[in-house]
Amino acid sequence: MKEQVQIFDTTLRDGEQVPGCKLGTAQKIEIARELELLGVDVIEAGFPVSSPGDFEAVQQIASIIQNTTVCALSRAVEKDIESAAEALKYAQNGRIHTGIGTSDFHIFQKLNSSRKAVIEQGVKAVKKARNLCAEVEFYAEDAGRTDNFFLAQVVEAMIDAGARIINIPDTTGYCLPHQYGEKIAFLMNHVPNIDRAVLSTHCHNDLGLATANSIAGVQAGARQVECTINGVGERAGNTSLEEVVMILRQHRQIQLSTNIKTEQLTQISRIVEAEMNMPVQRNKAIVGENAFAHSSGIHQDGVIKSRETYEIIDPKEVGASNSQIILTARSGRAALKYRAKLLQIELNKDQLNDAYDRFLEVADQQRQISDFQLKELLNNVLVCHAR
Amino acid sequence: MKEQVQIFDTTLRDGEQVPGCKLGTAQKIEIARELELLGVDVIEAGFPVSSPGDFEAVQQIASIIQNTTVCALSRAVEKDIESAAEALKYAQNGRIHTGIGTSDFHIFQKLNSSRKAVIEQGVKAVKKARNLCAEVEFYAEDAGRTDNFFLAQVVEAMIDAGARIINIPDTTGYCLPHQYGEKIAFLMNHVPNIDRAVLSTHCHNDLGLATANSIAGVQAGARQVECTINGVGERAGNTSLEEVVMILRQHRQIQLSTNIKTEQLTQISRIVEAEMNMPVQRNKAIVGENAFAHSSGIHQDGVIKSRETYEIIDPKEVGASNSQIILTARSGRAALKYRAKLLQIELNKDQLNDAYDRFLEVADQQRQISDFQLKELLNNVLVCHAR
Repeated sequence: MKEQVQIFDTTLRDGEQVPGCKLGTAQKIEIARELELLGVDVIEAGFPVSSPGDFEAVQQIASIIQNTTVCALSRAVEKDIESAAEALKYAQNGRIHTGIGTSDFHIFQKLNSSRKAVIEQGVKAVKKARNLCAEVEFYAEDAGRTDNFFLAQVVEAMIDAGARIINIPDTTGYCLPHQYGEKIAFLMNHVPNIDRAVLSTHCHNDLGLATANSIAGVQAGARQVECTINGVGERAGNTSLEEVVMILRQHRQIQLSTNIKTEQLTQISRIVEAEMNMPVQRNKAIVGENAFAHSSGIHQDGVIKSRETYEIIDPKEVGASNSQIILTARSGRAALKYRAKLLQIELNKDQLNDAYDRFLEVADQQRQISDFQLKELLNNVLVCHAR
Repeated sequence: MKEQVQIFDTTLRDGEQVPGCKLGTAQKIEIARELELLGVDVIEAGFPVSSPGDFEAVQQIASIIQNTTVCALSRAVEKDIESAAEALKYAQNGRIHTGIGTSDFHIFQKLNSSRKAVIEQGVKAVKKARNLCAEVEFYAEDAGRTDNFFLAQVVEAMIDAGARIINIPDTTGYCLPHQYGEKIAFLMNHVPNIDRAVLSTHCHNDLGLATANSIAGVQAGARQVECTINGVGERAGNTSLEEVVMILRQHRQIQLSTNIKTEQLTQISRIVEAEMNMPVQRNKAIVGENAFAHSSGIHQDGVIKSRETYEIIDPKEVGASNSQIILTARSGRAALKYRAKLLQIELNKDQLNDAYDRFLEVADQQRQISDFQLKELLNNVLVCHAR
């Protein structure tokens, strides 16, 4: 029996916190509905105190979404928590996400505070939130660079104060996977009341390691992953929801599953891309336009013989169209024959050899060969052979 | 004393193997020159037997590049190796990269062969290449899904045959970091003649783990990383050169360094993006347009107080312009004051509060606030206060 990992989507909060990505309330509601259909467990809908527009969006999403938990962000500050609680008033399942910086960088340089004062402020915030909302999550900002012994004290205090989910953000995207995994394992082993809470990963991609760090986190005992569609988010973005979900699905030995309906991943990726005006690069894992496109001869030959030779995911599993065999100067005879067949043109060996030579001449000049060009080329070859 | 990791760039071979990315010979030469300036140790310039255009490009790059090794790909097939050797004839430092599939998927489904025959074919190819070129690298295709005991036999045989670099590709992007690291460690421990060769990582990003896998590989003993600029490559692409290099630079405890001049990373990223017509997403690590852009209030406040609060890399280290403080509805007073100051407008507390309220009204309607809009808004506030 597999254990469940909760998927906490923060596309509308940490994801929207991106230059040029601002969404209107109607757009946020549309994405929230899609996220609920996708099967995420928690939608972080916004940061109500930050602006009147954000407050309104959280309030409306909270009234509309029925099954998925709706979460609102706040700093460990009274007015933030009150604003979050007010915005969540009509939620079926609401959660306040409050917290404070715990690394020395944050405590001394940003907050001008002390370790003791930071714990006190956090406890006060969690208690306040606990009185206004049924479920409270605490974030230890910059936990990735926080001393593990101090972090364990923070986590213990926040669980005692009533937080049921503890978020361990690698705010700057600094950790290596083994370091982040060891941090989660340390907390699992050193926080006496850890059985009363769930640890959550929240990783940033500044060094390209957000996905690997999140996986290392759940392998070490975390049971919630915070992530965004397409990995959108400030700077290099957050953990990509689609990558984490597909890794857990492909690597069954990890023995963890999610509630995500993977066949909707491609569609929601396209919606978020369009609404946020945040293009996904063609070589993006899982949801990029090329994720299942093959153009080199060696690979095409392999995929035509058996999809599994070069593909570990069946494109249908993520709602993408079939593996594509694209004709370029790197394609081989197998691909040419395959694409000819799709055009209902059967070639014998001599015809194929001739067609291939002509094909390479054209392909060396161009990026791709279209069906139209291919048909013309093949017809010319067939005419010559018929003479 | 740090050990060196060789950076093997395959932008022009595995990277160019992408639908729509085909480069002309002049473009390839330009990129090869930039790669040499960047400080890569090996440039994989192409796959000469695959098309006349590719042959010509490898030949020209081999004649032009002086210090960096120029490498040509071939299958474990006589005519491929002869073509690669011919293309490298004028290279100062040439390398033939030959190999064959070693996973059961490849041996039985693609090659219709046997384990024994695959080793024999590989040995024959390495010996042939060895007679035509001073340096030979062998790739064990789909090593990521190859049984480790068999893989160790393959590696031992190829080293005996004369290969000095052994590439362990995770061809389908399947491995988790700890699995890939364990594979490299297994080979380091079980191949008797491993001290006569260097192991190389070659990871694909189908599950978003290419960078993490490459790092796990070097931590386990590999001393060459195969990668591409911007992570371009077939399907979800290859390991991103810029991510691996910056991880090794940031995590000094790994005790490995490269020859890369990191301050050129942003520039070469832009060149490859433009020449290949392969847009880099804004949230791409290290080289994305947003990699150092801050828009949320909490982050902006932190960065203004001390860059290290939210940034682990100084943008100048990778040749990017300074950290950007962008004004959106998520920005706070600290950012507004900072940007006003850049416009030479100093605000007192009351003025700032007024300006912030007006700013939020405008920002809730728009994605970003320009300098021009900001100036107008601030001037209005100052006029009101002067009355």
